[in-house]
Amino acid sequence: MSRVIALDAMGGDDAPAVVVQGARRALEERPGLRFLLFGDRRKLEPLLASGPSEAFTVRHTEEFVPNDARPSLALRQGRNSSMRLAIEAVKSGEADAAVSAGNTGALMAMAKFVLRTLPGIDRPAIVTTLPGRNGPYVMLDLGANVDCDAEHLLQFAVMGEAYARAVLGKDRPRLALLNIGTEEIKGEGIVRKAATAIRERLPQIAYVGFVEGDDVMRGEVDVVVTDGFTGNVALKIAEGASRLYSSSLAEAFRSSVSARLGYLLARRALERVRGRLDPRRYNGAMFVGLNGVVVKSHGGTDAFGFACAITAAARLVESRTNERIIAEMRGLGGSDEAVAARVTAP
Amino acid sequence: MSRVIALDAMGGDDAPAVVVQGARRALEERPGLRFLLFGDRRKLEPLLASGPSEAFTVRHTEEFVPNDARPSLALRQGRNSSMRLAIEAVKSGEADAAVSAGNTGALMAMAKFVLRTLPGIDRPAIVTTLPGRNGPYVMLDLGANVDCDAEHLLQFAVMGEAYARAVLGKDRPRLALLNIGTEEIKGEGIVRKAATAIRERLPQIAYVGFVEGDDVMRGEVDVVVTDGFTGNVALKIAEGASRLYSSSLAEAFRSSVSARLGYLLARRALERVRGRLDPRRYNGAMFVGLNGVVVKSHGGTDAFGFACAITAAARLVESRTNERIIAEMRGLGGSDEAVAARVTAP
Repeated sequence: MSRVIALDAMGGDDAPAVVVQGARRALEERPGLRFLLFGDRRKLEPLLASGPSEAFTVRHTEEFVPNDARPSLALRQGRNSSMRLAIEAVKSGEADAAVSAGNTGALMAMAKFVLRTLPGIDRPAIVTTLPGRNGPYVMLDLGANVDCDAEHLLQFAVMGEAYARAVLGKDRPRLALLNIGTEEIKGEGIVRKAATAIRERLPQIAYVGFVEGDDVMRGEVDVVVTDGFTGNVALKIAEGASRLYSSSLAEAFRSSVSARLGYLLARRALERVRGRLDPRRYNGAMFVGLNGVVVKSHGGTDAFGFACAITAAARLVESRTNERIIAEMRGLGGSDEAVAARVTAP
Repeated sequence: MSRVIALDAMGGDDAPAVVVQGARRALEERPGLRFLLFGDRRKLEPLLASGPSEAFTVRHTEEFVPNDARPSLALRQGRNSSMRLAIEAVKSGEADAAVSAGNTGALMAMAKFVLRTLPGIDRPAIVTTLPGRNGPYVMLDLGANVDCDAEHLLQFAVMGEAYARAVLGKDRPRLALLNIGTEEIKGEGIVRKAATAIRERLPQIAYVGFVEGDDVMRGEVDVVVTDGFTGNVALKIAEGASRLYSSSLAEAFRSSVSARLGYLLARRALERVRGRLDPRRYNGAMFVGLNGVVVKSHGGTDAFGFACAITAAARLVESRTNERIIAEMRGLGGSDEAVAARVTAP
């Protein structure tokens, strides 16, 4: 099926070149995709001229959201920015999803303002898939909500479970709360309250309890729920630790003639590991809980990473994650109004 | 110089065997060490009989703190436990430091109760060194304090800096606060407040600003300050990510004949990397802020890991970290009383 993806062509460290190159790479895998490119025509046209361009439509705007802009300011002043227009295209139905590598805070603020949250959801969250021992797992929130109460964590559980069903293709994803001790006696009060709420009010979810940081990648859990501060730190620490390991390894392979030779012999196997753990492959965090699909790519990504973000957006549209979240939240309390009342109650 | 280390012989998953084996390994490196072994004589004597035992003195007790005990209960009921008696030996001056692989919460509660905090310090913290790109860095708090305010983070900064001077041997360790954005506009209110407090009240500290999770290992920072919940998650996520990488690598090297051969050729270089990043090498988290040196070993460690914890304890005694913290806290406000008043002020 043909999908239209709205691209914020001016967001990210190497925009717009990486955006156009990334879209072309995504097209190789999914030739049915079509792109609305929001950005500066004078910069985009030379890039499009250098290769196939039938899948692209340029929507000119000279405005864009700077990387260091305050979200509130971007929301007020960025009405004609490439980011805002890409989100508006989702709202109007012109595009099925929007992808941006720009300022996360501004993207979240605009997406929330333009698309609104799904019925029963107070706050959208940022979710992504990450590499684990037995395949990928899902973690949220990754930074949209710094201060969370138990009710927010419960909503993240609903959203994370629906996302995992769609993206991991699991029938009954196992869900856990990130804590600093697997015994119920340890950890934060809010996390303990959320555990009780999930157990009592979401019996249909396969809630397996608390997990600690080192359990997360062990492959026993499919969805890890935490607040946005902890989730963002966890995500970036995991990236940093993987990078430390791979750079130390690269150094080791250069350290002697026999190590160099060893590398050449083991190269194919090593590249498979690197490929499986490559953070770029997991590029593309979705904003869940919104009336529409918005995917945030890493600001510093390359064309391969940006292509992964586009592919993630297409997959999310196809898997109808939002429809499932709406149904789950309805199941929690009946009508949309009842759901809304319930989830915001203390 | 001869140092006496009090060992909780009954703490940890494989106690007391790992404790005795670990102490023997530590002796190989530091033959001057002497050990007070607190635990069950009937279990300890056969272990001591199987090798050299001149460095050991057994202090018999049948009581110990179970791994899943509530800290408050352990504090009330564990007065004759091996853990408590090891800490009491530090208090009485019989031992220079105590090491335990037992229940962290109970160890912290007992150490705080028996040894008390240093003048000006409200709450002790757990600190350790971790592997980074250009050598180890220091992180705290790793789980002693789940809820922290800006004032606690300021005290952690003082303690972490003193610890880094001693353990990393750096003259002016660069200190940063863990946050979810390096720009001052992002992140948690408490972290922002702590940044202001550190900048204004600790001008002698080389405070470099906020770091994100992936900056932590890049080698640009020597001390990373955060609350105990985030720190514990970060520590364990980093361990999990390293383990995921190394197990994927081991699999890759077994996946083909040429990969196996490659491994053999690169083995020496690879073992250096593994050694440098080995979490066991970084075993031994110190409780800073107490009137005495107490080191917590990982509960599931082996003899090598336990030996590293003992060595860390000996090094901390020699480097006089506590004396430096007292001096710094005095410098913050004059007399001990003024310091105490100042650091608890809003």
